[in-house]
Amino acid sequence: MHSPTSAGHPVTVLRDVRPWGGERSDLHVADGVITAITPHDPAGAAAGAGSTVGAERTAGVVEGGGLLALPGLVNAHAHVDKSWWGKPWVSYGGAGGVQGRIAHERAHRDELGIPGVDVTLAVLRESVRTGTTAVRTHVDVDLGVGLRGIEVVREAVAALGGAVTAQIVAFPQDGVLRRPGVLELLDAAAAAGAEHVGGLDPATIDRDPVGQLDGLFAIAERHGVGIDVHLHDGGDLGAFQIELMIDRTLRAGLQGKVNVAHGFAVGQLPAARQAELVAAMGEAGITMTTVAPIGAAPLPLHALREAGVAVGLGTDGIRDLWSPYGTGDLLTLTTQLARLSGFRYDEDLVAAARIASADAGRFVGRAVHDLVVGAPADVVLVDAENVPDAVVRAPRRALVVAGGRVVARDGEVLV
Amino acid sequence: MHSPTSAGHPVTVLRDVRPWGGERSDLHVADGVITAITPHDPAGAAAGAGSTVGAERTAGVVEGGGLLALPGLVNAHAHVDKSWWGKPWVSYGGAGGVQGRIAHERAHRDELGIPGVDVTLAVLRESVRTGTTAVRTHVDVDLGVGLRGIEVVREAVAALGGAVTAQIVAFPQDGVLRRPGVLELLDAAAAAGAEHVGGLDPATIDRDPVGQLDGLFAIAERHGVGIDVHLHDGGDLGAFQIELMIDRTLRAGLQGKVNVAHGFAVGQLPAARQAELVAAMGEAGITMTTVAPIGAAPLPLHALREAGVAVGLGTDGIRDLWSPYGTGDLLTLTTQLARLSGFRYDEDLVAAARIASADAGRFVGRAVHDLVVGAPADVVLVDAENVPDAVVRAPRRALVVAGGRVVARDGEVLV
Repeated sequence: MHSPTSAGHPVTVLRDVRPWGGERSDLHVADGVITAITPHDPAGAAAGAGSTVGAERTAGVVEGGGLLALPGLVNAHAHVDKSWWGKPWVSYGGAGGVQGRIAHERAHRDELGIPGVDVTLAVLRESVRTGTTAVRTHVDVDLGVGLRGIEVVREAVAALGGAVTAQIVAFPQDGVLRRPGVLELLDAAAAAGAEHVGGLDPATIDRDPVGQLDGLFAIAERHGVGIDVHLHDGGDLGAFQIELMIDRTLRAGLQGKVNVAHGFAVGQLPAARQAELVAAMGEAGITMTTVAPIGAAPLPLHALREAGVAVGLGTDGIRDLWSPYGTGDLLTLTTQLARLSGFRYDEDLVAAARIASADAGRFVGRAVHDLVVGAPADVVLVDAENVPDAVVRAPRRALVVAGGRVVARDGEVLV
Repeated sequence: MHSPTSAGHPVTVLRDVRPWGGERSDLHVADGVITAITPHDPAGAAAGAGSTVGAERTAGVVEGGGLLALPGLVNAHAHVDKSWWGKPWVSYGGAGGVQGRIAHERAHRDELGIPGVDVTLAVLRESVRTGTTAVRTHVDVDLGVGLRGIEVVREAVAALGGAVTAQIVAFPQDGVLRRPGVLELLDAAAAAGAEHVGGLDPATIDRDPVGQLDGLFAIAERHGVGIDVHLHDGGDLGAFQIELMIDRTLRAGLQGKVNVAHGFAVGQLPAARQAELVAAMGEAGITMTTVAPIGAAPLPLHALREAGVAVGLGTDGIRDLWSPYGTGDLLTLTTQLARLSGFRYDEDLVAAARIASADAGRFVGRAVHDLVVGAPADVVLVDAENVPDAVVRAPRRALVVAGGRVVARDGEVLV
C-alpha cells in the first residue's frame, strides 16, 4: 500500500473511450502525459483479447470498453489531514457552530492520531478510488501541531507515488491574530513551500478583519504564495471582507492568487449588491471554491462565470471531528452542486462537470487539466451515456488513471 | 424479467445479519413474514459452505455475512408512472416553474411511451435494486390519460411478483377544478381501488383552494380513501391551505388519512407561527412527506415528531420530463435528508434511517414494517459498521430481500 515509487501499472494507450461523451477514441500516453488522441482503432495494437474495462491487452495497452471519459476529478477544497476515514465510527459529540466544532476537534484529534500519515493515506486512497487525482487541501497549522500536519500530508501524497497530487494551504483553523504565534507559523509554512496561506473568518474568529487580512497579504507578498480564506461570515459582513480582499489583491498585484472559500455571503446578497460584488471580484481576479452545501443559498454560478470568477468544487472535511458526512466522491458532489444550482439543461450539467475537473486545474497548480494533448494523463471512466447522465447519476468509477497509471478499477483502489 | 408469479428465490433463514447494527442474528422467514429472530448460530442448519453474502447454503438458507440489516426502504412519495429511466437520455427542454414543467410533460410524454408498463417496470426494478420494497406513488390522472396510468402501475407492480408493493395516489397533475372532468376521474379512481386521491397547490394551480379541497374531501368521505396533496405553495399561502386541510380533516373524521406532500411552507414560517401550525397538524393527525429538496428550508423534523406528525421520505420524480435528476436510491436520499436537517448526532442519523424505513409503514399501508417478528420479510443488507455509518455513506446494497425472497444482490436486480 505504501508504494515509495510510482503506483499502478503504466498505460501507453487507453483504448476505446469517449472523451466528454464524444467519439470513441484511443488516448496515447507517455511520461504521464496525453501525447495523442486518435479515433478508436478496433484492430488496435494487438488482436484477440476481450474488451473488459481495465484489462491489459499487451504491456501498457488498456481497454476502456467504450466508456465515457472525464479528466481526473479535482478536489479544490479538502482537509485531508484530519479525516478519520477507515477508523471505527466516532460519534459526534461536540457543540454546534464553528466555535463548537473547533473546540471538539482540539479536544479529540490526538486520540485519533490526527494529524498522521496513516489517516491521511486512508482518505486520499478513498478519494483516488472515486476518481480524484488532484487536491488542494487546507492543512491545520496551529500552536499545538505547528507545521507537522503539512509534513504528514506531503509524506502521504508521496507514498501514493503520483496517484494524486496536492497543493497545500497552511490553514489557521484555530484563528490567526487571536493566537499569537500563528502568523509566524504561516510565514514559516510559506517559506517551507506551502503553496498558499489560509485564513478563517477574519471578523468573527479574530474579531479583526483588517488585521488578519493584512497579515496574510504580507506573507503572500513576501513569499509569492497564494491566499485562500475560509469565509463563512454571511451577508454584508461577508461581503465587506471580500471587499477588503479585493482592495488588497489589487494593491499587491496578486490577481489570480487569492481565493474565497465558501463565501456564503455571495449567494445571500440582494441581486444588485451581488452583481456589484461579483463584478469587482472578477476585475481583481479573485476565485472561489464551494463545497455546494445543502441548505445554503447557492453561489450564482452563471454570474460568476460571466464576471470571470473561476469557481472550484471541493469536499470540505470528510468524516472528521467537524462532521461525520462526506465520502470524498467529487462526482456525487457534482450532482449536489448541479442540483443546488437548479441546473436542468444539458449545457449546465456539463458546466458542472467541468467545474469539478477541467476548469479546476488552476486550483491545483496545473496549467492544463483536460482530455487534451499535453495534459496530465488523468482519466476517469464511467458507464454513462453522456456527461449530463454521469452528473445526475454519479455512476461507480470503472477505471481511474492518474499520471498515466491505472490507480483504481471497479471500485477498488490499486495504490 | 416479467415474472408473473413470485420473483427471486425464497428465504427460510437469513443467517448472520446485524439488525439495525445490533447483535449478529438469524432471521427466520415463512410465507413472506419474519417468524423469529434468534442469536446467530455459527453452526447453523448446514455446515461447510462459505459465507459469501447472498450465497445459498441449502434451500432457502441465505448467508448475510455479518452485514448490517435495515428494513426494506419505503419510498413514500414517488411518480413511477412517468420516469424515462433506462431510455436514451432526454435533454430537458421545458421552461421553468411548475407550470412550465407541466406543459413540457404534456407535450412530450407520448413520444416516450409514458405512461407505459415497460417504463414503469424499469424504474421500479432500479428502485428494488437499491433496496426499496414499498412505494406510495402519485399516478397522473388527467383528461388525456384518464385512469390508464393507474392500470399501468398496477400491472408493472404485479409483474414484479412481490418484489415491491405499491399504494396509489390518483394524482391530478394538471389541476382539478381548472380541468372540468378531473374531479369525476378522481372519484372513479377511488371507486376502482386507488388508496388515495391527490391534489396540487389548490391556490396557485386551481386558483380556488376551498373548491379543490372540498372536492377532494368529498371523494375521500364517499369512498373511505386517503388524501395526499402536493403543496409547493410557500409561506402564509401554504400555511393557510394546510389550515383548510386541518379543518376539513377534523370535520370529516379523517385523522391519520390526510397527507401534505412537500409542504415547503412549514419549513419557511417564522418560529412561533410554525409551532402553532405543527401543533394543529399533530392534533388533526395530518402527516407529511418530503423529498428533502436541496436548497429548500428543511422541515422541522424534531418539532414534527414531538407534535406527532409522521414524516415520510420519497424520491419525487425520477429522471422524468420534470427533471433529469433522481436515481430512486432512498438511502442516498436519507443522507440528503439528514444533511439538509443538520443532523450530526448518532440518534438523529438513526432517526433519519427510520423515517426512510421502519417509521414509514403507514405511508404504504403496512401496520408493521421493521425487523421484528410479524413484519414482512423485507430486508436490506449493507456493508456498514452501524446505522449512522450507513446513513452518511449510503453503501451499495449487498442483498435485498422482499416478501421473503432475494430480489437483488451485489447491485444487480434479480427480478
